[in-house]
Amino acid sequence: MPTLTAAQRRELEKIEFDAFMAECKSRELLETLSSKWVALILSALREKGALRYNELARTIAGASQKMLTQTLRGLERDGMVTRTVEPTVPVSVTYGLTPLGASLAELVSSVKTWAESNMVDVIAARAEYDDRA
Amino acid sequence: MPTLTAAQRRELEKIEFDAFMAECKSRELLETLSSKWVALILSALREKGALRYNELARTIAGASQKMLTQTLRGLERDGMVTRTVEPTVPVSVTYGLTPLGASLAELVSSVKTWAESNMVDVIAARAEYDDRA
Repeated sequence: MPTLTAAQRRELEKIEFDAFMAECKSRELLETLSSKWVALILSALREKGALRYNELARTIAGASQKMLTQTLRGLERDGMVTRTVEPTVPVSVTYGLTPLGASLAELVSSVKTWAESNMVDVIAARAEYDDRA
Repeated sequence: MPTLTAAQRRELEKIEFDAFMAECKSRELLETLSSKWVALILSALREKGALRYNELARTIAGASQKMLTQTLRGLERDGMVTRTVEPTVPVSVTYGLTPLGASLAELVSSVKTWAESNMVDVIAARAEYDDRA
C-alpha cells in the first residue's frame, strides 16, 4: 500500500478498532506486539537510548541474529524504531525509538518489570497449584 | 515443587531477576505473559469482572476452546486467575482475577488499548515503509 493520503487517513480514523473482534486489524497488531523480543528490544532502547546492533545484541542475551533482525525490521516498518546507517567502514547501524515506539516502550517495559518483580509470587503460586493437583 | 516454605521464599526473594538474561526465570515468565490470549483474557476480566467460561469465549471472538482452556489453566497455575466451580447441573465455572492478576491486567490491557488507539499510525507507517522499499 502506498503512503496514505489525508483522505485515506481520515477514513481510517473513523474505524473503531476493537481487539476483542477476531477480524479486527488491531487483534493482529496486538499479536505482533505480544512478543518477548518486542518487549526486550523496546525496553533496551528505552533504558539505554539509541544503540548499535551489536550493543542491542549484547543487551538481549540469547537472542539469535535472525530473531533480532526480523523483529527490528518489523518494528521499523510499524513506525516504532528508527534505523540510522552511518557511512563508516564498515557501516554502523544505530537503532532508536520514534515517539510512537517510545509510547509503546513505556507499556511493554512495565510488563517486563512486572515479570521481574513478581517472579517469586508466581513461583509460589505454581508450587501451591501443583501441590493441590 | 511443593508449596514454598517461608525459608525457601526468603531465599528466592534474594534473587535479582533480570529478563535481559537468557537463563533468568523472568525471561520465561515474560514469554508466557507475551501472548495476545493472555492480554485479551485479562483485559476481559478486568473490564467485565468475573465471567463464566461461555461469557469469556463470547467476549474473545475467534479464540478456540483449546486455546482458551489452556491459557486459563496457565493463568490459574501462575496465581493470576481464580476458577470457581458451582455445583449446579450442569456445573458452572466462573473465572476472576486475583490481586496479582489484576496488577498485570492493568498493564496488558493498556497494551491492548494502545494497539486499538494507534492502529492508524501503524498502518500509515507501514504504507510509507513499503513505498520507500
